[in-house]
Amino acid sequence: MANSKYEYVKQFEQPDALLPNAWIVVRIDGRGFHKLSDKYGFRKPNDRRALDLMNAAAVEVMKDLTDLVIAYGVSDEYSFVFHPTCQLFERRCGKLVTTIVSTFTAHYIFKWPTFFPDTPLEPSSLPSFDGRAVLYPTTANLRDYMSWRQVDCHINNLYNTTFWTMVQKGGMTNTDAERELKGTVSSDKNEILFTRFGINYNNEPEIYKKGSVVYRQYELEDPNSAEATNEPKQEDASSALQKDISKTQQEKIRKLRRKARVVVDHVDIIKDDFWQRRPWILSNKPGKLPTEE
Amino acid sequence: MANSKYEYVKQFEQPDALLPNAWIVVRIDGRGFHKLSDKYGFRKPNDRRALDLMNAAAVEVMKDLTDLVIAYGVSDEYSFVFHPTCQLFERRCGKLVTTIVSTFTAHYIFKWPTFFPDTPLEPSSLPSFDGRAVLYPTTANLRDYMSWRQVDCHINNLYNTTFWTMVQKGGMTNTDAERELKGTVSSDKNEILFTRFGINYNNEPEIYKKGSVVYRQYELEDPNSAEATNEPKQEDASSALQKDISKTQQEKIRKLRRKARVVVDHVDIIKDDFWQRRPWILSNKPGKLPTEE
Amino acid sequence: MANSKYEYVKQFEQPDALLPNAWIVVRIDGRGFHKLSDKYGFRKPNDRRALDLMNAAAVEVMKDLTDLVIAYGVSDEYSFVFHPTCQLFERRCGKLVTTIVSTFTAHYIFKWPTFFPDTPLEPSSLPSFDGRAVLYPTTANLRDYMSWRQVDCHINNLYNTTFWTMVQKGGMTNTDAERELKGTVSSDKNEILFTRFGINYNNEPEIYKKGSVVYRQYELEDPNSAEATNEPKQEDASSALQKDISKTQQEKIRKLRRKARVVVDHVDIIKDDFWQRRPWILSNKPGKLPTEE
Amino acid sequence: MANSKYEYVKQFEQPDALLPNAWIVVRIDGRGFHKLSDKYGFRKPNDRRALDLMNAAAVEVMKDLTDLVIAYGVSDEYSFVFHPTCQLFERRCGKLVTTIVSTFTAHYIFKWPTFFPDTPLEPSSLPSFDGRAVLYPTTANLRDYMSWRQVDCHINNLYNTTFWTMVQKGGMTNTDAERELKGTVSSDKNEILFTRFGINYNNEPEIYKKGSVVYRQYELEDPNSAEATNEPKQEDASSALQKDISKTQQEKIRKLRRKARVVVDHVDIIKDDFWQRRPWILSNKPGKLPTEE
Repeated sequence: MANSKYEYVKQFEQPDALLPNAWIVVRIDGRGFHKLSDKYGFRKPNDRRALDLMNAAAVEVMKDLTDLVIAYGVSDEYSFVFHPTCQLFERRCGKLVTTIVSTFTAHYIFKWPTFFPDTPLEPSSLPSFDGRAVLYPTTANLRDYMSWRQVDCHINNLYNTTFWTMVQKGGMTNTDAERELKGTVSSDKNEILFTRFGINYNNEPEIYKKGSVVYRQYELEDPNSAEATNEPKQEDASSALQKDISKTQQEKIRKLRRKARVVVDHVDIIKDDFWQRRPWILSNKPGKLPTEE
Repeated sequence: MANSKYEYVKQFEQPDALLPNAWIVVRIDGRGFHKLSDKYGFRKPNDRRALDLMNAAAVEVMKDLTDLVIAYGVSDEYSFVFHPTCQLFERRCGKLVTTIVSTFTAHYIFKWPTFFPDTPLEPSSLPSFDGRAVLYPTTANLRDYMSWRQVDCHINNLYNTTFWTMVQKGGMTNTDAERELKGTVSSDKNEILFTRFGINYNNEPEIYKKGSVVYRQYELEDPNSAEATNEPKQEDASSALQKDISKTQQEKIRKLRRKARVVVDHVDIIKDDFWQRRPWILSNKPGKLPTEE
Repeated sequence: MANSKYEYVKQFEQPDALLPNAWIVVRIDGRGFHKLSDKYGFRKPNDRRALDLMNAAAVEVMKDLTDLVIAYGVSDEYSFVFHPTCQLFERRCGKLVTTIVSTFTAHYIFKWPTFFPDTPLEPSSLPSFDGRAVLYPTTANLRDYMSWRQVDCHINNLYNTTFWTMVQKGGMTNTDAERELKGTVSSDKNEILFTRFGINYNNEPEIYKKGSVVYRQYELEDPNSAEATNEPKQEDASSALQKDISKTQQEKIRKLRRKARVVVDHVDIIKDDFWQRRPWILSNKPGKLPTEE
Repeated sequence: MANSKYEYVKQFEQPDALLPNAWIVVRIDGRGFHKLSDKYGFRKPNDRRALDLMNAAAVEVMKDLTDLVIAYGVSDEYSFVFHPTCQLFERRCGKLVTTIVSTFTAHYIFKWPTFFPDTPLEPSSLPSFDGRAVLYPTTANLRDYMSWRQVDCHINNLYNTTFWTMVQKGGMTNTDAERELKGTVSSDKNEILFTRFGINYNNEPEIYKKGSVVYRQYELEDPNSAEATNEPKQEDASSALQKDISKTQQEKIRKLRRKARVVVDHVDIIKDDFWQRRPWILSNKPGKLPTEE
């Protein structure tokens, strides 16, 4: 074929399959969202419309890619988690990451008018996202990653809530507020909010304090049940990697997953309770569909 | 800080900077566009609206990322080329690829209604793209990559044009047309088009035969000038990598590039002429802005 | 400095640190040992001198690199295992692998005259080894890797023992023996050995049947003790990765390890018993030194 | 087969083929040679025996791996260069690096008694080497790498020669000599050597000033010939990568290379002359064998 003279250039593509049997976290981040949030007038410290749009896009990604077991979002970032046994796209890193980034972007742009009906997008300032994949060998590492993001959410939200209250309600300049907050710890900020502005931080909306957790909903397990307290076995990798078996079985499981509703929650994912009551997330075995929705 | 207990998980992120002084090609491909083109009624063998939309999105990517020197698109794929001296995002592979994929997707979705005014997107079937980066050490390799894509465009378009003419004008079934075309060479297909349907393939639109080339427009060089016939020197890597110097200079060059118009051409990029008349593409040194536009 | 003009070439070195908290197996293989074993007259099916030399070199590698927790050797290959918490050379892949390969080679060459006093090495046929690193995310994966090598040892040794007995004692040609063994299962080979040659394979030396396991010796645990039956916790990665703490502590642990004797065993490592009685291997916490040696 | 249950662990091995059509430099370094040179009484500032041993080992590596085109050694390091068209071991990084490291180590240990007849190796202090591979996309980059090492050789040797002369002949303490040399430039050191000790640095042995260059010897080209002044074409990658063709041809070229003598030179490799007179190094096409040796 005439093409053969140039086809050798295909040899320059390098394989990028991710290590088997490790958790894959794909985290995406808004590109230049600081500037973008000014441009489109995002409210400070939190813009509920923007968060709801992020969550709506994340739900679509979860529906599209049934291999995802959970996602966690805060501000303009979202982390999507593939199970260690995931074989999607032969675990090719670039393919996994770009598919998530592109699908998320598509829905974000498409749904924008729903969440910002009065603020049309301008072609010179379209939102976009970058992304990366990170591997976590053990379930403990994955749990720590999720905790890291949620602690970060809390720290940033407490700071931002205090800062913007000082500016918006206290009439301080940005610089003055920043200077006063420098070096303060959590209790200091809680104190400022409460004594000066009568705000009890605990009463702030959960979505701001906890971020957003997205997952497939099945019947919750009793936290004391055997199912719940058993450590999820990540170990039995041999069966997970026997690809012939899993091809048909995976398709079956995929269908089961499509039947489950994808929900958005704003709850603690640092403690064990969340995970014990939803054992399907770490085990990757679909639970029972709720009898009534 | 309370966060420190979990922050160790950042150590699992692995560096992915691409080898310095090599050409970077980021190729993106439509995900499931075969099905999608049915869904939205793309015309066969080529849908001009769909190609124009691809090109419009590519132009925006070129404008946004001034480090790109050229792009080439055909069907639902687009290849974007960074110069060997490119330092954008410290050449981090994931960052470069996802930024292009996301920016392209954003514009594709945003501009869809302009090019398909009568065919609104459906949320369950949004277009999306995946992408990958490939390195090419030498200019000859890069040129061969570009030639590979354009030869591929030609081969596919000749086949598709013949096939769909046989079906649409010749009333053949897909299976029959496929069977007859099996094993034919280019001249056979030209012959079928001409003798049976009076179609001279050479007169088909250039956009279908050559694909689309996107680049910044400066004054063309005389192909016999010294500038044009000198091989572009990729070699002087040391200066390119002296980052301190290039930071300010890069910013200056970036501004110059923003002034240049990004154009879409449908021309031969296999022969030398295209490159000799546009030496700025391989040299990465901005040319002269046209005196009148 | 005059050097600066060229120093930019250092930027082309690419990082290769291995994923944290995963087991690292470095397997080395003899280069062209088939030819080499002919050259130096290795005995068939096993040459005890050659195996003892491999083991002696492996023991020196284990002594030199105290971060290694276990090694397993068979024929002309050896697998060396670093614990998930290992920070040696910042887990740089190339550094870890080449250090093991070079240290092993050095001792192999140096000790050759001790094990082959009548067969001097010839400069044109010096033994050498290549090596690679493989990551295993979980302890179950690592155990399966070790089992894989030991099962391989068994399969090959049973075949080789039968083949060479048929040739050496049975007077068959290589081709005839090979043909007869084709398609046989283990029991067939046992039967051939026993009925034709009066050899009970079970009585063959353990070193041939089981390969060689190299590790630091502490007091064995009672297989029913809490220490032994507790699954080793790989999970607490955060402490393992807090490098400041571990620097001094690691040095202390290193000293403790140097005091332990490195032993060569020929035992089953597939069943749990081996690992339960030697919990220090998977936990990486030094055990009690034997009170008398 | 009984083995299949565990064989899945092979899937954890990750490919590591190096980018095609780029120069591969494998640099090896002595492990802990500072301590080792004290242990075995290496002479300061240069131990001719140790350098000759390094060179002898490098010559054997060059003979063994005919794909190597040149090597450069200084002190306890050696850089081995594979041509961009090299297909050895399918360009697998680990395989290339460990093979060089192991082969070098084997010869270094084996030849030690020849170069240090009165200083036997001790098993607890065997020399060993680590190694890494670095890619260079262009010939200019490769030349710059080689220049970098030779400039480094010069800078270190001038410093060490001056320092040890001050200590050994000038009776200064190490600390005093170090302090006096701090901040000096080349001319200062030349001056110290000449005025205080009557030593003209230019008359020092070339092996110390220039390091050691190892390559296959063919008939030198006239530096003004067409062959010599033509830039080596790295570009025609397509033919180099057409593996079927090159398999037999490579074997033929390999044989031609084995006939050439591997020589050790101590000459300037920064200027063009060295490369122009030996065009086979960069072109990878064997030259004419000298008519008489």
